[in-house]
Amino acid sequence: MDVAISATLAANEEVARRRRAGQRILNLAFGEAGLPVHPALRDALHQAAGSNGYGEVAGSRALRTAAAGYWTRRGILADPGLVVCGPGSKPLLYGILLALGGDIVLPRPSWVSYAAQAELAGVRPIMVPPPPGEGGAPDPGGVEAAVTAARAEGRTVRSLLLTLPDNPTGRLARPETVRRLAELARELDLIIISDEIYRDLVHDPAAAFLSPAEVAPERTVVTTGLSKSLALGGWRIGVARLPTPGLHRRLVAVASEIWSSPTAPVQHAAAYAFGEPPELVRRIAESRRLHGIVARAVAARFAKAGARVPPPQGGFYLYPEIDGFPGPEELAATLLDRYGIAVLPGTAFGDSPTAPRVRVATSLLYGETDEQRLAALHAADPLRLPWIAAGLEHLEEALARL
Amino acid sequence: MDVAISATLAANEEVARRRRAGQRILNLAFGEAGLPVHPALRDALHQAAGSNGYGEVAGSRALRTAAAGYWTRRGILADPGLVVCGPGSKPLLYGILLALGGDIVLPRPSWVSYAAQAELAGVRPIMVPPPPGEGGAPDPGGVEAAVTAARAEGRTVRSLLLTLPDNPTGRLARPETVRRLAELARELDLIIISDEIYRDLVHDPAAAFLSPAEVAPERTVVTTGLSKSLALGGWRIGVARLPTPGLHRRLVAVASEIWSSPTAPVQHAAAYAFGEPPELVRRIAESRRLHGIVARAVAARFAKAGARVPPPQGGFYLYPEIDGFPGPEELAATLLDRYGIAVLPGTAFGDSPTAPRVRVATSLLYGETDEQRLAALHAADPLRLPWIAAGLEHLEEALARL
Repeated sequence: MDVAISATLAANEEVARRRRAGQRILNLAFGEAGLPVHPALRDALHQAAGSNGYGEVAGSRALRTAAAGYWTRRGILADPGLVVCGPGSKPLLYGILLALGGDIVLPRPSWVSYAAQAELAGVRPIMVPPPPGEGGAPDPGGVEAAVTAARAEGRTVRSLLLTLPDNPTGRLARPETVRRLAELARELDLIIISDEIYRDLVHDPAAAFLSPAEVAPERTVVTTGLSKSLALGGWRIGVARLPTPGLHRRLVAVASEIWSSPTAPVQHAAAYAFGEPPELVRRIAESRRLHGIVARAVAARFAKAGARVPPPQGGFYLYPEIDGFPGPEELAATLLDRYGIAVLPGTAFGDSPTAPRVRVATSLLYGETDEQRLAALHAADPLRLPWIAAGLEHLEEALARL
Repeated sequence: MDVAISATLAANEEVARRRRAGQRILNLAFGEAGLPVHPALRDALHQAAGSNGYGEVAGSRALRTAAAGYWTRRGILADPGLVVCGPGSKPLLYGILLALGGDIVLPRPSWVSYAAQAELAGVRPIMVPPPPGEGGAPDPGGVEAAVTAARAEGRTVRSLLLTLPDNPTGRLARPETVRRLAELARELDLIIISDEIYRDLVHDPAAAFLSPAEVAPERTVVTTGLSKSLALGGWRIGVARLPTPGLHRRLVAVASEIWSSPTAPVQHAAAYAFGEPPELVRRIAESRRLHGIVARAVAARFAKAGARVPPPQGGFYLYPEIDGFPGPEELAATLLDRYGIAVLPGTAFGDSPTAPRVRVATSLLYGETDEQRLAALHAADPLRLPWIAAGLEHLEEALARL
């Protein structure tokens, strides 16, 4: 076992170190939602502060029922008895890999922790690029070829992962691609893991979104959490919808030996949140709008400087490519060391070491304090707030000189 | 990977199912502290309800510093820079196994999750019984022989685990045993993992307690948490003291890919708790007294019925042996099915399938509500409270008829 600290968390700690040393750093490296806790959630946590029992390993019935309702409202069949809650969707994804065993097909690029978790779990990732212009879903033709080849070599391939919408690319896979992958999973007998943690942050609420769980509910795991849509990353709560009692039982067994259950007062607040009360629906709509406005503004700065930037469609990420660098590591190092701008190199996401692509997280531009962040959330034009304008200007100047 | 749900959590869920079905069950199977959250901790959680950042993977500086102070006051060298906080000491123990690799020596019997975690981490446990009359520490002679034999077979053995005081036996290893094991770990080049989660619940505050970290600080990991001493099991917070920067770095890497960080508001409350303010020191002293009184009363009921019961010295467990059964499974099944008393068979702790020993957890006798539990905590004679007396009577009658 030789694993490095997660690239995104390491970058965040590096930014903190440089700031303590007096450097001015624009942190575009870390995928934190950058918004305050809604007061209703603070109240819900407080209400449940007396909850100190371990409770059920799979999570409280209230939370499992609320999560099942959340999925049902999105056209995904979900049974509270087949939901598992965990301290974040990250441990759930790790637990699912352990429970499944066998190698996994991942999109290239994809979120930093999938491949690292696979290594920890003793599973080998098979990385397949997405169809041109897409992100978060491997190309179906590439998947078929890769799985067939791996099986011909005697490898056991059990699963296929999608991120809808995607981190790092900010792109949303087309419904046709998702449908084809779900059919292919049936043909190849693969479990599909659909990481939908950014689902409620697709910028255009009218965009066509298809979950593989709508096509192949019998073989699709869906994971989500409240870290992104409600900015509760530090609260650590995620939920997984399992397709079968067998996989559910195995995941609960793994959970019982690794983490026992998620924090009980947080489960209470999360049950409230997955019930989608109007004030939280409104908060998520405001967040979605802000993420879209700022992501597009940052993308425009990169495009103006000559970068190729696939237009961001969800979450708070973009994935520009800038010519003139031997690879992404050199590009990221130059941005950080020379211009005080922290981003993550594409290699952190499994991408090519010679393609100068970096992931830019735009959500830490919203401000340093809850007051600034709330102002950003409610501003008619958030780009005109002085601290956001200053961040964009810092970026624009750096890119012009790059 | 084939792992079953943790025996103790499974037993708890089985009790809940039987109660929903209308059965009257005395739950002596589950290791929950059975006491309410102290109001100061509820307040601390509430104060930090706005904390939603992921923060550092290793935990906040405030919590790491408080934990280091806690250990320093107990004669254990600890550096906040070598402390890692996790969502419970259970995930920390799992992460340490992954970070260390190599097989591990465990006491037989020992807590249900050590061996299960080892299996999940691809590590083989080597189980060694304690010296006669002790618990929680393998016999030094047995360790030397077992490690030598395993290495002669080509196995890599990296670590040795102690539980001080012990779950399931309720016994505290003698300082001489701990000292010899620490010396042996040096001779055999083993890392020592000292699980001290019940340390503050040794019934006699004057009892001689030696941590292997006092003898061999350069190779000892100490883990603890607030689940037992302050009854915060459902809050999920634990801390680990690492001996070296290398192991610290590896554990942080594992943590970053599996759980990111513990719940931020809980970290805030835990930093307060590890600072040992007077009202929490008093609460722990009251808890320790109650655990001791009830554990001894339950032990006396078993002894009266003819069982051999090593006197409990810490925590809220005892480990009686009752003749007349082919093994612990049959004894536990009879107690549950015929007398409505849930306990765990010794086999859940890796003990012999032919020794009729069961683990009895006594802390769920304190009551069903916070009011009852607080009354138990503050009663001059908790055994005379009607609900505790009724539980003891139920037990005594069952044991008389067994």
